[in-house]
Amino acid sequence: MATISRQVQLTSRPSGVPTPSNFAIVSVTLPQLGDGEVEVRNKFMSLDPSMRLLMREQAFHAPVYALNTPMSGRAVGEVVRSRSADFKPGDIVLSNHGWREGFVSPATDLQKAQLVPSLPIQSLLSAASIRGFTAYAGMMRIAALRPGDVVFVSAAAGTVGSIACQIAKIKGHTVIGSAGGPAKVAFLKEIGVDHVIDYKAEPDFGAALRKAAPNGFDVFFDNVGGSQLDAAFQVANNSARFALCGTIAGFNQDELIPLYHSNLTIVKRLRMEGFVVWDHQDLFPEYMRELSGWAASGKFKSKESIEVGLENAPAAYGKLFSGESIGATLVKLD
Amino acid sequence: MATISRQVQLTSRPSGVPTPSNFAIVSVTLPQLGDGEVEVRNKFMSLDPSMRLLMREQAFHAPVYALNTPMSGRAVGEVVRSRSADFKPGDIVLSNHGWREGFVSPATDLQKAQLVPSLPIQSLLSAASIRGFTAYAGMMRIAALRPGDVVFVSAAAGTVGSIACQIAKIKGHTVIGSAGGPAKVAFLKEIGVDHVIDYKAEPDFGAALRKAAPNGFDVFFDNVGGSQLDAAFQVANNSARFALCGTIAGFNQDELIPLYHSNLTIVKRLRMEGFVVWDHQDLFPEYMRELSGWAASGKFKSKESIEVGLENAPAAYGKLFSGESIGATLVKLD
Repeated sequence: MATISRQVQLTSRPSGVPTPSNFAIVSVTLPQLGDGEVEVRNKFMSLDPSMRLLMREQAFHAPVYALNTPMSGRAVGEVVRSRSADFKPGDIVLSNHGWREGFVSPATDLQKAQLVPSLPIQSLLSAASIRGFTAYAGMMRIAALRPGDVVFVSAAAGTVGSIACQIAKIKGHTVIGSAGGPAKVAFLKEIGVDHVIDYKAEPDFGAALRKAAPNGFDVFFDNVGGSQLDAAFQVANNSARFALCGTIAGFNQDELIPLYHSNLTIVKRLRMEGFVVWDHQDLFPEYMRELSGWAASGKFKSKESIEVGLENAPAAYGKLFSGESIGATLVKLD
Repeated sequence: MATISRQVQLTSRPSGVPTPSNFAIVSVTLPQLGDGEVEVRNKFMSLDPSMRLLMREQAFHAPVYALNTPMSGRAVGEVVRSRSADFKPGDIVLSNHGWREGFVSPATDLQKAQLVPSLPIQSLLSAASIRGFTAYAGMMRIAALRPGDVVFVSAAAGTVGSIACQIAKIKGHTVIGSAGGPAKVAFLKEIGVDHVIDYKAEPDFGAALRKAAPNGFDVFFDNVGGSQLDAAFQVANNSARFALCGTIAGFNQDELIPLYHSNLTIVKRLRMEGFVVWDHQDLFPEYMRELSGWAASGKFKSKESIEVGLENAPAAYGKLFSGESIGATLVKLD
């Protein structure tokens, strides 16, 4: 009754954008179930830009990935065998045991998934996940959206960004989004973003932002850092609030990206606040209630880019940075 | 009865630190008083680092100084003649008509001074002024001091910095201050700063800050920007609050100073807020009450560096940036 499961291991630390040569696909035989253990077959796993930070030699915020061991990452799967009273075959569960087709783990590693009725199961790794909630916490608590705010979202076609844009639109705001390439631009227009900046088509991002926001903006939800953040200082209205969520611009390079215009923080009375979603979990039930309502009424679109097959995960990971994927990038495993 | 008054005019826009060659001393005959006008003899004028921004071709926050006209700046003086019902000879008044020995202006340009009983008259341009209040507003409202906070103040021996340090000490905090040179270090120790960093004596500011704040800090009151701000990102505790008040590091250069470590804002959940004191005037009466109490009880020391004579103002201005002046730099005019 032993199950063979394939997993992805990091075999070398990437320089720049990760390529398949940094990874290996390894087949393992899953162990027999011990007491309190559960066997799960993953259905979807998540590919997150921030995983790139864990591929480095060291990271500020978390232990990095060890080489030649299975990598961690969010996954949704189905229980196939259980020696825990808390789970039975057929249960849909969330775990951090992504990058593998199946696994055996203590029941305590698993979380029962709460499906949002109008959204597909994979939304448990996008809108209906901590990543969607990141957009909500950043918009509602850190930026503290107020009526009339004009909102700028960077990496607007990404998982967090596209949900941030939709939340701001549902709340009645004018939204400016930046993204790279015509497919993302089309997607952002489809979800109602008012002004889309294709940063790849703009020689001068600051000028493009100024044109997209002729009267400035009041809230910046930043997933990028670097030159987009630097331009934002220059175009922001007085007293604008910057919710700093991510710095994807710097993930693939070892050199730090300089900012030149942060001095404008003073004359413009800007408030910048970095946040980590785990500090704001008290808001999660409120988000899930709001999301369920938006999804049921058709106001909210869940968007994922789905690759099929574990063997394609390493190549798909690189696409996160080449700008080919829209919304959450997931790998379908079953 | 005409009065001859000397004034300082900017004759060329400085490159780097201003020198006397950028200024001229010009004698003018004050006009006769018109209805509602007042003649004032200045007693002290203020030399502010931020005036340097107004010596540029353009500034973000205010009109720059025109060449070959009297410059503006805070001054305290005494009314010598009045054709306004609101002022009589002998009144002590505040104005923006600094950089000159005397002037005639509409009474509406003047503000009656409220002396703090235990402080000298020149404190109207330092502790008992909008500059002292800048320290208070930044500490109490922007940084929002909480019990137990460890506080780091840059340019700690300057007008705003030295008052910020004293406020934090009076409120019971551990205070780390940066300043340049042994005289400033001695002054900061005298006013009770717990750990003083002489940035001129430290090859690696970040290492010095880490040593002065082995357990990090919770509040940064920044008057400097540049490399001190960059180091602060690295040493700050999680959830530290940065009250950004000034960027003296960049005043004398046209190139913008890059920041490399602002990405730490996210993982450390830092909150940075720039502020301009004029937005917080509602707190001013509270500050004056607190200051009066501190001064009366001897808890608070007013500190000014005083030059004598208008003709010495241009050279004294440059000293603001060479690190020779402690506390507010004033010129005594009468």
